[in-house]
Amino acid sequence: MPLLVVGSVALDCVETPTDKRDDVLGGSAVFFSYAASFFSPVRMIGTVGEDWPTRHTRFLQDRGIDTSGIETIAGGKTFRWRGRYLPNMNDRETLEVHLNVFGEFKPTLTAGHQDSRFVFLGNASPTTQLSVLDQVPKAHLTVADTMDLWINIQRDELATLLRRIDGLVLNDSEAKLLAEDENLVRAGHTVRAMGPKFVVIKKGEHGAMFFSEHEMYVMPAYPTPRVVDPTGAGDSFAGGMMGHLAALGRLDPQSLKEALAYGVVTASFTVEDFSLDRLQGINRRDLDSRLAEYRQMLSF
Amino acid sequence: MPLLVVGSVALDCVETPTDKRDDVLGGSAVFFSYAASFFSPVRMIGTVGEDWPTRHTRFLQDRGIDTSGIETIAGGKTFRWRGRYLPNMNDRETLEVHLNVFGEFKPTLTAGHQDSRFVFLGNASPTTQLSVLDQVPKAHLTVADTMDLWINIQRDELATLLRRIDGLVLNDSEAKLLAEDENLVRAGHTVRAMGPKFVVIKKGEHGAMFFSEHEMYVMPAYPTPRVVDPTGAGDSFAGGMMGHLAALGRLDPQSLKEALAYGVVTASFTVEDFSLDRLQGINRRDLDSRLAEYRQMLSF
Repeated sequence: MPLLVVGSVALDCVETPTDKRDDVLGGSAVFFSYAASFFSPVRMIGTVGEDWPTRHTRFLQDRGIDTSGIETIAGGKTFRWRGRYLPNMNDRETLEVHLNVFGEFKPTLTAGHQDSRFVFLGNASPTTQLSVLDQVPKAHLTVADTMDLWINIQRDELATLLRRIDGLVLNDSEAKLLAEDENLVRAGHTVRAMGPKFVVIKKGEHGAMFFSEHEMYVMPAYPTPRVVDPTGAGDSFAGGMMGHLAALGRLDPQSLKEALAYGVVTASFTVEDFSLDRLQGINRRDLDSRLAEYRQMLSF
Repeated sequence: MPLLVVGSVALDCVETPTDKRDDVLGGSAVFFSYAASFFSPVRMIGTVGEDWPTRHTRFLQDRGIDTSGIETIAGGKTFRWRGRYLPNMNDRETLEVHLNVFGEFKPTLTAGHQDSRFVFLGNASPTTQLSVLDQVPKAHLTVADTMDLWINIQRDELATLLRRIDGLVLNDSEAKLLAEDENLVRAGHTVRAMGPKFVVIKKGEHGAMFFSEHEMYVMPAYPTPRVVDPTGAGDSFAGGMMGHLAALGRLDPQSLKEALAYGVVTASFTVEDFSLDRLQGINRRDLDSRLAEYRQMLSF
């Protein structure tokens, strides 16, 4: 079933301890869409400025991604992010953020997009995410990401969002902040009690944790020796997860767990090169083969 | 088969963000022995001072642990450690260390102990660990722990040790230091190439990684919502792991993996209270039941 994603479309400048890239394709909706496209048709909603290279849109179209929801703002500039990874490659500092057109992002879905059954609300304010929710009345599964910024400045709107979505995906420090608890196991349960049916806490190189009313589990990251650029790992995790669910069209606990595993495996490829460079070089068979290895790794 | 452990025997003072305990039973050999005693007969080698409460020895004997290798040094004082955990309960600072009699620890094994087939060399200098290795010529499996201190000041002796042991257990920061590599996957392989047949990297709340020539895997920590005091988690992990192997008497890859899982589960109980308080309240059935839950958690 078609999967709709709303989020940022960006040009990233990334510095690692040994290398750097300027103005590469990035943003939550981009990483999510590309990752999900291994599994399912994807509809991508975002906004860019006049500086957006049209080859990036063609590149996404070539993957079969529906880019008709990417709006180009006349006279505007594309969202830009510049960051630097610390030697541990897990922590990073943001050196520059220019929201540009993303700061005024008010997504309006076409009738053709409003019937989407699987919806991912990537990085955007809870207000924006709520306005998208209002436009997808037929959704079977709605999952949102959030950020420390929104936890700090839009806590009430976020609380409203949490009561309306099925799933929330957030990283470990955000979960601790939102739950006001340093223990991640308790924090996950606390966040789930705020409304969503399930919560996924992303722990970067340490994997992910899942919480629902009746279940809680941890999945380690797939251990790759080649960590080049972790940018987009979280969004490709979500893309692999939602893509698999949209393809199955099922939401039972076992499918959700397998979806998380696909998310882990997809993200493990993303970090092996800058931007989407590594994902471009693989196919669905590579994902399935690493998933089988991962499954074997966890069985004893 | 009997399992021999050589390591520290200590009185610990532990501060957490919400509680504290003074002069509680601790030390690598103590946590290891108690954890291993759920699985296998244990012989414990260590040294204490005149201040050592004999009730601690009786407590260990009541578990069936052979304490005849604990030497009391006349006029000496027992090893003492004082530490404080940070709010994340994963990182800690050492406030005081008094090696006392442990600083002069030169273990001499009796003939009855020299025939041990399973041997764990807990926290001690590589020189001391090597001297123990010389005394257990019939060992089937020798595993050592090490510390940043020895990596920094006895690197050559440690290199000799690594060429003589079957397995090395160390924590993530120590692995990075020893391998001079921030990527744990590469670091694990590098350390293994220094000699041991297998290496286990302990990642605290994030679990453990295993490396052998033909295999590499990650196991997450069992996610407990109740982290009271992580002291001794690493040593009880090693105790659960080696105890299971000594009980099986096998060293095939599948047994090693199951042993690691038992280590994870044993450690997850240790952190649920101070000192050995939580382990005292459980039995082998509790370990098996949590292992089953853990196995289920990792299958998809």
